[in-house]
Amino acid sequence: MHKSVTQIILLGDGMGGRPVPSLGGQTCLEAGNYPALDEVARGGECGYTDPIGPGQAVGSDTGHMAILGYDPVRYYTGRGPFEAKGVGIDVQPGDIAFRCNFSTVENGIIKDRRAGRITEGTDQLAAAVNEAFRDGIDGVEVIFKESVAHRAALVLRGEGLDPRITDVDPHKTGVEVPQCQPAAEAADDPAAQKTAAIINKFVEGVQEVFADHEINRQRRAAGLPPANIVLPRGAGTAPHLMPFSEQYHLSGAMIVEVDLVRGLGLYLNMDVINVPEATGGMDTDEMAMARAVVEAAASHDFVLCNIKSPDVGGHDGNAEQKMEAIAKVDRAAGHLLDALDWDSTVLMVSADHCTPVTVMDHTGDAIPVAFYGHGVRPDGVQSFGERPFAAGSVHRIHSLDIMNIMGNYAGTLPKFGA
Amino acid sequence: MHKSVTQIILLGDGMGGRPVPSLGGQTCLEAGNYPALDEVARGGECGYTDPIGPGQAVGSDTGHMAILGYDPVRYYTGRGPFEAKGVGIDVQPGDIAFRCNFSTVENGIIKDRRAGRITEGTDQLAAAVNEAFRDGIDGVEVIFKESVAHRAALVLRGEGLDPRITDVDPHKTGVEVPQCQPAAEAADDPAAQKTAAIINKFVEGVQEVFADHEINRQRRAAGLPPANIVLPRGAGTAPHLMPFSEQYHLSGAMIVEVDLVRGLGLYLNMDVINVPEATGGMDTDEMAMARAVVEAAASHDFVLCNIKSPDVGGHDGNAEQKMEAIAKVDRAAGHLLDALDWDSTVLMVSADHCTPVTVMDHTGDAIPVAFYGHGVRPDGVQSFGERPFAAGSVHRIHSLDIMNIMGNYAGTLPKFGA
Repeated sequence: MHKSVTQIILLGDGMGGRPVPSLGGQTCLEAGNYPALDEVARGGECGYTDPIGPGQAVGSDTGHMAILGYDPVRYYTGRGPFEAKGVGIDVQPGDIAFRCNFSTVENGIIKDRRAGRITEGTDQLAAAVNEAFRDGIDGVEVIFKESVAHRAALVLRGEGLDPRITDVDPHKTGVEVPQCQPAAEAADDPAAQKTAAIINKFVEGVQEVFADHEINRQRRAAGLPPANIVLPRGAGTAPHLMPFSEQYHLSGAMIVEVDLVRGLGLYLNMDVINVPEATGGMDTDEMAMARAVVEAAASHDFVLCNIKSPDVGGHDGNAEQKMEAIAKVDRAAGHLLDALDWDSTVLMVSADHCTPVTVMDHTGDAIPVAFYGHGVRPDGVQSFGERPFAAGSVHRIHSLDIMNIMGNYAGTLPKFGA
Repeated sequence: MHKSVTQIILLGDGMGGRPVPSLGGQTCLEAGNYPALDEVARGGECGYTDPIGPGQAVGSDTGHMAILGYDPVRYYTGRGPFEAKGVGIDVQPGDIAFRCNFSTVENGIIKDRRAGRITEGTDQLAAAVNEAFRDGIDGVEVIFKESVAHRAALVLRGEGLDPRITDVDPHKTGVEVPQCQPAAEAADDPAAQKTAAIINKFVEGVQEVFADHEINRQRRAAGLPPANIVLPRGAGTAPHLMPFSEQYHLSGAMIVEVDLVRGLGLYLNMDVINVPEATGGMDTDEMAMARAVVEAAASHDFVLCNIKSPDVGGHDGNAEQKMEAIAKVDRAAGHLLDALDWDSTVLMVSADHCTPVTVMDHTGDAIPVAFYGHGVRPDGVQSFGERPFAAGSVHRIHSLDIMNIMGNYAGTLPKFGA
């Protein structure tokens, strides 16, 4: 259809939360001063959304899938394929992909799952891995690539593989490095057995490669934990997702900070726009991201932007930091309010999930959502937050309905019936 | 079950809307003075409903199906079968039915899709069509019948037909009359090819019949555009719908103004009651309709009434007209409030969809809904409208739940469990 109204989704990653005792029982969204978010609430339709169903916590991958209308229950194949695609590996049908951490192990015990949050030299470590496994393992091709900080991705390519295997990353420290095994439901499956065996050889081989690597000699000399192991997890095959432009007949752009979500955008064949100043941390330049959104909106029907830092503050249990991060989302929203023509733009502001500082992890709490701009019926809600949105007119929607709601405001969704 | 509580659904077609700048940002429902609707709101449970899902716009056919509990996603077969049934053609299994317009064509270019909104003589034109195709086309029976104004319906009856064909009506003027073709998904299907070929012969034959028809000679003499072609669209087979009385064990009546919805009532084997004073326009006698509802309520368990005119005002982008039309709904509601025993009646007032004057078409905005009468828990909402209903206790329901809610108040819905 002819483009007339631009659709924009602005997400503060993990922005929703729960009451924080040190904030007098308010949430980080409720306690902070966010004038642009409040303006969106005052001029918008407010409520809650659930990505899968009430109570069900999601990841950033499954949360974004739901918001974009791709049912995660049906299409999600694991974290690995998203990370691997996001870091730039051309994941192909049949490949088994993994999310990995550079980690620190000592006498077989995991000491640091993020190797002191290593930021430099992972490219050299990755190059050494690829060199070591240049001939593959048991006839299977090995593709390894570093991502931001301690993150990396691994792809196995070959015949007779199966993603139904256990994680090597135990998600805690002070324990032995687990052996990769077929998952319970695939215990007797030769492909899963073969894949697990290859992963164990990979993890063992990486340790040999990394033990005396120059980067680790430097790290030990500097008193930093060495990156002397790689812990794969989240095995999965490439998901089958209809390209965004075919699904919605809209041109779509994505401006995000994490490879996991970038991978989704790449699978959907959206224009994944790189903003060099977007770091994913507290030092990110949210205004550069907001300017990129405005620029993308001039040439696309649809733009999704995710600012990562509120989720980091949530995971760290740091309310002050989370509120500073939400202020970044607020400033980005303010730039959108200033720069765009609201007679021909519709905006949704929300989050992919809640990450309460009191939980320090994702929760399945209802996620605040506000629709603003062309066509909406402002509902009288006066401020952006979990409790104020209880009075909103959106009430509680499934996230899979969001794209239809946006399409309704934009006038791009065909009528069903006569 | 024994009848004790009568269930009534009163719909203002397309009555929901969006903020209108000339009304100070209020909707037509919010800005007008509708004492009876406000009384329903004050004494009722208020909220929103979505016929298919949030954001998804529907037609009057699919909207009414959802309200009556017949899932349009599952059962809808296109507009034609409803129109054809509604004008009185006995559509049978296997028939292919079409909605048609009497239109004006000049040198092969469509000049007026409604032939100057022709109101008289279409019965004679239709008789000429049936006479011309008395022996059918390619062994297929042709049944054509005029409806209100420029509207008509066509049924093809015979072996080897398929509804997967394109519309002849291009929904715009200034273009050539399209050839009917098999739809993309049925391009190689012989039945679809045969059906399309028959439709093309029909359209061609109609033009020969109409060219010098007496009615058109009169129209040309009067300076009116001739009805010199018929444009079929919305091909479909008869839907498979369980009769209302079997589905709900209730006797049901329908008092409506448009053939599209009347057709649904006939497929459901409801008592479709004709009110001669109901015109579907601004000159309709809503009090005659309301009296007919009260009369039907005395002998039926369930009555659905739709007043068409608010939708017309919406499509015309005329806020004043739409408000006058809503006032008709209000007066009808007032008569119901006065005339019925509310200890033994439950009423729902709502719309089949929203038709904002700012959009001039149906939208997928949440539709206001209020339940009133026997058994309801008044929720404190003080006036009937889009925004006031945000605070209502109904919150946001799927329209497929409405019949259960009505049955619950009426005590006719059996308990599930012990």
